[in-house]
Amino acid sequence: MGQLDTKVFRDFSYGLYIITSGAGGRRNGQLVNTVIQVTSEPPRVAVTINKKNFTHELIKQSKAFGASILDEAVTMLFLGPFGFRCGRDVDKLTSVEHKTGITGVPLVTQNCLGILEARVFAEMDLGTHTIFIGDVVSSEVLRQGNPLTYRYYHQNLKGKTPPNAPSYQAPQ
Amino acid sequence: MGQLDTKVFRDFSYGLYIITSGAGGRRNGQLVNTVIQVTSEPPRVAVTINKKNFTHELIKQSKAFGASILDEAVTMLFLGPFGFRCGRDVDKLTSVEHKTGITGVPLVTQNCLGILEARVFAEMDLGTHTIFIGDVVSSEVLRQGNPLTYRYYHQNLKGKTPPNAPSYQAPQ
Repeated sequence: MGQLDTKVFRDFSYGLYIITSGAGGRRNGQLVNTVIQVTSEPPRVAVTINKKNFTHELIKQSKAFGASILDEAVTMLFLGPFGFRCGRDVDKLTSVEHKTGITGVPLVTQNCLGILEARVFAEMDLGTHTIFIGDVVSSEVLRQGNPLTYRYYHQNLKGKTPPNAPSYQAPQ
Repeated sequence: MGQLDTKVFRDFSYGLYIITSGAGGRRNGQLVNTVIQVTSEPPRVAVTINKKNFTHELIKQSKAFGASILDEAVTMLFLGPFGFRCGRDVDKLTSVEHKTGITGVPLVTQNCLGILEARVFAEMDLGTHTIFIGDVVSSEVLRQGNPLTYRYYHQNLKGKTPPNAPSYQAPQ
């Protein structure tokens, strides 16, 4: 040891989620692999978001976010805008099925197995990213299916990792 | 919405890892599903641990932890002690292959695809759990294989979730 081989991170496992938020009449959703449940009593979740992302700005303002658990049966055509288009230029939500949560954030329901929304009670500056911790205030199972994993996204859907993701590795 | 259905958390995806630490001549390792990479520049990881766990005490003291990425080919016989025995009573590491990292923490190598160690630079109190954020100071790929996921652990190895886990759901 003493060396640092970043290839080790390729064996970390994650799910894939659409994180949403809204404030001041604007809204956005983006693809992340960094949602985890951190406590069960009370139910709390954490999500890590790049400071450059529009969703980051919206969560900072609204202190709330939504998370939608993607179905493995989703297509890249559906996912594309959430991973690679900036929500400052286009409202990605106009063309997808969604509803509005009790916190006012949008919640994507299309191609998703479940949704939840959380109120942020703590956050921590991690450098390029912020980790937001939220109390889950509502959640709903939408349908049965296999949740989309990061591995399936890369191997079967041939998805790429955007440069703003925590797991991004620059081409060698 | 407005209701909270905790079944939604069952569709979250995770990997499974052994988190290790050591301080004052004592050491421990335990199973977690809560390791994520949170930034890539510099490489930083987060892990969420129950305050009741011995490993929590050791990370608090040493300000360092190790993480080993489990191989899907592992058996419940190997995993059992890391999930369900308390390290205050028994040194779980005596009977498994491991080495010592540059921070002094033990790193389990047996049945693992890769290892890393991190120095804690921030932590946050989440109630029942603490999230530790660490700078990765060394990491190593040990072998090729499929990383063990939480889903595989439940479905194929018939593993259970200990009550101290963030994702624990009490029997109804």
